[in-house]
Amino acid sequence: MAKKIVVIGAVALGPKVACRLRRLDPEAQITLIDRDDLISYGGCGIPYYVGGDINDLEDLYKTTSHALRDETFFREIKGVEVLTCVEAIAIDRKNHQVLIQELGSGTTRQLDYDKLVLATGARAIRPPFPGADLPGVLTVSNLHDAEQIKLLMTQGKIGNAVVIGGGAIGLEISEALTDLWGIETTLIEMEDQVLPTLLGKCIARAVATELRRNGVNLMLAERVMKINGHARAKGLEVHTTSGIMPTDVVILAAGVKPNTDLAAKAGIALGRSGGILVDRRLRTNDPDIYAGGDCIELRNLVSGENSLMALGSLANRQGRVIATNLSGGSSHFTGTVGTFCVKVFDIGVCKAGLTYRQAKETGYDPVYSVVAQPDHAHFYPNAEFIYVSLVADRKTRKILGIEAAGRHGDGVKARVDTVAVMLKNGIDVDEVCCLETGYAPPFASAMDVINNAGNSLDNILAGMNRPIDAADFLVEFSRHARRVLDIRGELEARPFVEKFGSRWVNVPQRELRTRYPEIPADEPLFVICDTGSRSYEAQVFLHTKGITDTLHIQGGYAMIKVTDPEF
Amino acid sequence: MAKKIVVIGAVALGPKVACRLRRLDPEAQITLIDRDDLISYGGCGIPYYVGGDINDLEDLYKTTSHALRDETFFREIKGVEVLTCVEAIAIDRKNHQVLIQELGSGTTRQLDYDKLVLATGARAIRPPFPGADLPGVLTVSNLHDAEQIKLLMTQGKIGNAVVIGGGAIGLEISEALTDLWGIETTLIEMEDQVLPTLLGKCIARAVATELRRNGVNLMLAERVMKINGHARAKGLEVHTTSGIMPTDVVILAAGVKPNTDLAAKAGIALGRSGGILVDRRLRTNDPDIYAGGDCIELRNLVSGENSLMALGSLANRQGRVIATNLSGGSSHFTGTVGTFCVKVFDIGVCKAGLTYRQAKETGYDPVYSVVAQPDHAHFYPNAEFIYVSLVADRKTRKILGIEAAGRHGDGVKARVDTVAVMLKNGIDVDEVCCLETGYAPPFASAMDVINNAGNSLDNILAGMNRPIDAADFLVEFSRHARRVLDIRGELEARPFVEKFGSRWVNVPQRELRTRYPEIPADEPLFVICDTGSRSYEAQVFLHTKGITDTLHIQGGYAMIKVTDPEF
Repeated sequence: MAKKIVVIGAVALGPKVACRLRRLDPEAQITLIDRDDLISYGGCGIPYYVGGDINDLEDLYKTTSHALRDETFFREIKGVEVLTCVEAIAIDRKNHQVLIQELGSGTTRQLDYDKLVLATGARAIRPPFPGADLPGVLTVSNLHDAEQIKLLMTQGKIGNAVVIGGGAIGLEISEALTDLWGIETTLIEMEDQVLPTLLGKCIARAVATELRRNGVNLMLAERVMKINGHARAKGLEVHTTSGIMPTDVVILAAGVKPNTDLAAKAGIALGRSGGILVDRRLRTNDPDIYAGGDCIELRNLVSGENSLMALGSLANRQGRVIATNLSGGSSHFTGTVGTFCVKVFDIGVCKAGLTYRQAKETGYDPVYSVVAQPDHAHFYPNAEFIYVSLVADRKTRKILGIEAAGRHGDGVKARVDTVAVMLKNGIDVDEVCCLETGYAPPFASAMDVINNAGNSLDNILAGMNRPIDAADFLVEFSRHARRVLDIRGELEARPFVEKFGSRWVNVPQRELRTRYPEIPADEPLFVICDTGSRSYEAQVFLHTKGITDTLHIQGGYAMIKVTDPEF
Repeated sequence: MAKKIVVIGAVALGPKVACRLRRLDPEAQITLIDRDDLISYGGCGIPYYVGGDINDLEDLYKTTSHALRDETFFREIKGVEVLTCVEAIAIDRKNHQVLIQELGSGTTRQLDYDKLVLATGARAIRPPFPGADLPGVLTVSNLHDAEQIKLLMTQGKIGNAVVIGGGAIGLEISEALTDLWGIETTLIEMEDQVLPTLLGKCIARAVATELRRNGVNLMLAERVMKINGHARAKGLEVHTTSGIMPTDVVILAAGVKPNTDLAAKAGIALGRSGGILVDRRLRTNDPDIYAGGDCIELRNLVSGENSLMALGSLANRQGRVIATNLSGGSSHFTGTVGTFCVKVFDIGVCKAGLTYRQAKETGYDPVYSVVAQPDHAHFYPNAEFIYVSLVADRKTRKILGIEAAGRHGDGVKARVDTVAVMLKNGIDVDEVCCLETGYAPPFASAMDVINNAGNSLDNILAGMNRPIDAADFLVEFSRHARRVLDIRGELEARPFVEKFGSRWVNVPQRELRTRYPEIPADEPLFVICDTGSRSYEAQVFLHTKGITDTLHIQGGYAMIKVTDPEF
């Protein structure tokens, strides 16, 4: 007899499970249900629809060959039944039934299943401050939200906006509002950096600079206390720790929360992070119920801890695994290393693994390098700077994380992905030094930035390279901690010598081997060059001459420029 | 006492060894010698200098911070002695001496060494046909060659050119001549495809199409018999298997050959491929002599066989390893997986591991998938097609190689590099299906092309996906082997129905579930769609209806278009 499969949720994982299962099992009776009328869409495309890169909402639920992915499409082409505007109310695990309700008519009925798949996704968090549910306070979690925001834009009624939350969605939406619509956008983040769960402070500063460069009013370490509606006028008032901000619209991008009510009510086990708990076959504690996508929690394969990771890419890969297992095969999904990327105006930002802070919290003794280098051969005309930070454990030399940013987004992705795929099975610093990636001048340097990030870390671990990062340097220098030895050419150094006087000493690298006696041997110094490779070399040289208390600035002036362009 | 280190060869590996060793060992007496006057240059940049992307020859031997890397630079900044225009004549291993000769004066003298490093590189092969050494028959192996070719171009005396050899250098030079200078360029390759040691036939066909689209007269399976000089007129005549071609200039790009005469004469062991044999510490059979770069042979970590791999990127990584070992550390270079990339006009082409043919020759039972898919989310405006081919061993499911091409070169590199770095320790098909790479619509699809290349291969290995590639299809279809079932829309299919009549049947995918009875159950068919994913799905569906003798075209019409745009 044909197996009855019911899939609850039809956005990313659900349709993937259904379509692959249909190919694997032509007999199975597959029913896909969703409470929405729009299904099987690219939710990650919403900011690009709002921002005008994508004109037509339908593009987000069309296939590559321009077919609309609606109920008819699934029935006629995929051989899968879809029920939309239908909510799953309860799971009767004993009798293998799901109680569903048609949202229009309110009619309820039971659906039998042999195997059930939970693909209930996640929803936007509404933070607990007063006013978070006022009209005009919007979220960005489905196509209806997207339509509503875009409608406001196209009506031209929005002059300014406040986005709450400096995670990926907050950044993407801020870009969408500013870039196409020219809306004065304030982005509020309560941590002291953007993308706090994704990036360490060095790359985060580069991202913040890109946001500000493009006109986003970025407020960090700022907390929203409440939102008031104007009694008479249209618009809202956002009250924060530092003041009151009138605005036409507020967009909440404070993260998402897995939809687990249905599962929890049925006694399906949840994990500590609040997502549904699954094994490597993506089965819940009920062997007839699978779950995947944004509603489950996943093992982080670097930290070993379970966490939430709401990503359409993981959902799709998991969907394939579930379908294979449903049809009697054996396929595993072991977890995630947290690979992530986001476009922020003109730069691509990617990461995998743990940030320095997360590594510390996990119990490692982390150490990191920061490297700034052209992404293509420096003599090749289209080369752009790429900034890479690599985190490793001091004792084991194991790589814990990588972050990068740069103007050629695909190239940033190339660097991070290569380390990301190795994190699962473990990779140490020495392997990064020799990592064999594609080389030709239009694509990379002979010693690529990724190798140099490893080389730098190797030298730091060996004690030869004693660094300070640009962000820490800016703080320390403003505290008059040390003088700076600038080994760049006279031309590059002059503005700084003029600005900082005797606190900024210029000895060009070419003269260092003869002029080093000018430097007092016991003076603590910062050493700077343009990208950090020559300042390291100078540090090593000075050390052999007894000038030992030096810190060289990782990524050099290139990194300072994207950390604080005003410096 | 300070150790005496002599490094023979100062282009890529030599300078890297010297500079890192200086940082590790401030006392060592390091001497770098080269028979040329130009040293430490980016030789891989030569085609871009010839093609005008790089205007100034000096850019190829300048640092990122615009310093010229000459003898003075190495002495003053790096603390390394460099002797140029000096040739190493003989190595006296017993007495630890190198006999050197100043090329200008002819004076010889002995250089003492404690450790010697051979970085003698490789030279262009002049094929054995008559006329290969005529004036006007040029190679592209150093900056002097580059200057000579560029001089000819800028003098405007060259109207047409013949490039011999369809490897990477041959392609790059053909592009340089055609693109900037508008020279009528004929590229002759004796194998039946371009990049024969690097690519399988599918991606090679896409590259050939790109060359032809840009006006290169590509002649495959063509052999040069001899080159004649015109007695009276300027210019040359290239005699090939198919005729005589008059030309203004011939550029030989028939590969390189390691410079090992010095080593061999001193009794240093060479390997079967003709390169110097080294261990994992990059030591030769003489423990006081190290070697690296284009003059050594390397273990291919996929095939297990030693081979030559002349790449500046490998040379640089090896240089660091040798310096570490020279200073008493312990660092290993275990071999290569053959990661490679090249830009060909508007496309990036990357590969790693073995081609289908190489895998077969190595004794595997290889199987491959070909996938065509947008590189970014298909709804994101700047998405471009990327073509990926993945090779695995049927029995072990071990990935043996990957190849890709597409317009976003950095994105092509991203896909190939992620698989490349995994080849060393082994990766199987299932891991590629779940490979966790960065996802956001501006950078990838939720199910990325790399995962789909794995999924395809998984389905092929399971017997569900029964494919034919576009190149084989074109041959078989021209032999009237089978009819085509085109499941694209009526509009896309119409021109083919008109052209091929009853040999091309159109049943749009949407109608297949109702109209399949029109297809005779015992008829062998090719199934085609736009990219190959729907034709696979149709194949699976037809199979359940008893229509079992189908081959679906991998990569679909997208792949056919880049295989034979005339079809």
